[in-house]
Amino acid sequence: MSTFDISYRVTVQEGENIDEKIEGICLEQSVELPRSVLSEEVETKVVGKLSSKEQLDNSQYDISISWPVKNVGDDISQFLNILYGNISMQPGIRIADVEWKQLPETLFGGPSFGIEKLRELYGVKDRALSGTSLKPLGTDGHGIGELCYQFAAGGLDVIKDDHGITNQSYAPFEERVSYCVQGIREAAEETGHRAYYFAHITALASEAVERYKIAAELGADGVLICPHIAGMETMHQLARMDLPLPIIAHPAFSGGLTTNDKQGLTPDFLYGQLWRALGADFLVYPNTGGRFSFSIEECQAINEGARNERLPFKSSFPMPGGGLKRSNIPKWLETYGPDTVFLLGTSLYEHPDGPRAAAKELSGMLK
Amino acid sequence: MSTFDISYRVTVQEGENIDEKIEGICLEQSVELPRSVLSEEVETKVVGKLSSKEQLDNSQYDISISWPVKNVGDDISQFLNILYGNISMQPGIRIADVEWKQLPETLFGGPSFGIEKLRELYGVKDRALSGTSLKPLGTDGHGIGELCYQFAAGGLDVIKDDHGITNQSYAPFEERVSYCVQGIREAAEETGHRAYYFAHITALASEAVERYKIAAELGADGVLICPHIAGMETMHQLARMDLPLPIIAHPAFSGGLTTNDKQGLTPDFLYGQLWRALGADFLVYPNTGGRFSFSIEECQAINEGARNERLPFKSSFPMPGGGLKRSNIPKWLETYGPDTVFLLGTSLYEHPDGPRAAAKELSGMLK
Repeated sequence: MSTFDISYRVTVQEGENIDEKIEGICLEQSVELPRSVLSEEVETKVVGKLSSKEQLDNSQYDISISWPVKNVGDDISQFLNILYGNISMQPGIRIADVEWKQLPETLFGGPSFGIEKLRELYGVKDRALSGTSLKPLGTDGHGIGELCYQFAAGGLDVIKDDHGITNQSYAPFEERVSYCVQGIREAAEETGHRAYYFAHITALASEAVERYKIAAELGADGVLICPHIAGMETMHQLARMDLPLPIIAHPAFSGGLTTNDKQGLTPDFLYGQLWRALGADFLVYPNTGGRFSFSIEECQAINEGARNERLPFKSSFPMPGGGLKRSNIPKWLETYGPDTVFLLGTSLYEHPDGPRAAAKELSGMLK
Repeated sequence: MSTFDISYRVTVQEGENIDEKIEGICLEQSVELPRSVLSEEVETKVVGKLSSKEQLDNSQYDISISWPVKNVGDDISQFLNILYGNISMQPGIRIADVEWKQLPETLFGGPSFGIEKLRELYGVKDRALSGTSLKPLGTDGHGIGELCYQFAAGGLDVIKDDHGITNQSYAPFEERVSYCVQGIREAAEETGHRAYYFAHITALASEAVERYKIAAELGADGVLICPHIAGMETMHQLARMDLPLPIIAHPAFSGGLTTNDKQGLTPDFLYGQLWRALGADFLVYPNTGGRFSFSIEECQAINEGARNERLPFKSSFPMPGGGLKRSNIPKWLETYGPDTVFLLGTSLYEHPDGPRAAAKELSGMLK
């Protein structure tokens, strides 16, 4: 029987027994019934089976459970359900890893571009990339487009809408995207530097698909989506569109899954691996030391998940953001290496000489 | 300027100042920039404003922030982003309430049926309803249909697919739904008791819409969906379909949002209020004392959120499940009252005389 492994870090609570807890996961995430009422056939072909167990300390264990591939069918939704459906409501269970190679190739497609192809496309051989967000919400389409022009003319590589800017009356979607595309083109003509603009398309899934098509038609270079708002499978659907654009994934609404160290999904599993499997070419995550809360080890593990060759998918560009400063870029470049997109917001907006000068300074640091 | 209020319970961490933390939320969930770089116009029309603040103890505060309705536009996704986008990655912020009446009527539709209309439809005046899940995964469509017949003939009211059963080769979707509809009809002919079958349709959003239509065509009485897997807005889209079927919402994958008492969304806000706003007629939640972890107060608050008239939507039927036992039903009936659907699984499957007898015993307790 074809199976795939999920690895968990399990913390037993007071009064809990590790073996009962494991047995609970094996049943909860498959049949949701005790063994006493199962037929032998169902018990054999459906229930999860412990494949490894290692004790870390008094209360923590690293375990793996093998799941029948047939329980998933051809359905990413059902994969997510087996991964972390009902056990999301039980304490002390954290998802750490999946043996992706054991899953059918047809289930997850990974990024449609990946680091190598993006480097070719952008003509950027081995340096790190610079990025920023167009904001604030409340600015009109013309103003956002002008800002896009300034950042592009200053030499930034990746310029994306802020994830809070969707289709508000302040700056309706099509108008904003048109102005930004125009800004990129004008900057390229004037300076010879080509920047890449990513339009934010998070919406109801069917609407996100429509906005993806419109963004492509209007000449955007890629899209930005919040998979935990629009639906994780929606991102996979977008990555499999006929007219592929690179996708940036943004972590809004995902914190409940990653910020509790005894529950949820490890940040490197969610942002580095699952998003990559679901088709994100760029992975935005909150860098350590900024307004958010991950450790340097967690951030490095996300980078590793995004880039490593163990996964049967193209690689993704990690895109740390949320409090990065121009002055710290040399340090982060040394720490994270060139296969990184550095996403700066406030630090560019605060530059005394304006966005173009800020972009010039940042891109100079990465050359 | 038209605004709506969100209430938060905020826990300050060591070294944090409450006023700075509030200022952080007001900026993070709107402009994502410091005030120093904002124009006066943007600052006035876009940034959130503190509307109330109460200190609870040394580290906890209940606060409310007013948000411009214009920041939402006509988009539930952007509402979710303002509600809990980036702050999901910061510690100590929990969403407790929303002033729904301050939002445009066109944004959220609420349940298309609600308790009153469902009671009319089902001809059940004022008693509580009984419910169960068809399982285990691994059973073929014929077997699931037979089980559905047995539970219906025994007198259960609401019979739903298990949320782990989707479209596996064990029991493909259409075949399973057809057998279940047949089971319900046969039982009604034989016994005069009409039960209601809910088909599980969680999938990629576009596929969920297709399965909804197929379920309706095949004669299912309603659908079951996991909004945190298929997308929360997908549920709202389903509730607004031309051919309305009642919707049961299931909490799989939602635990990361509700089980940390200093972060996320309170269970009564998420399951009782937000799901109701998004169109769920029945709200499945993990009852206290079972395999999951909510307190009795949290469960009662979910019931209150589902039923209370403060919300400008039809009411929803709370559907506690996850470890309810036949023997405890009288106690729970007294505690939760008649506007409740009691969802039993294992306790019915373990009945020594089989599902029909189990259903008869349970429905007898509710008459």
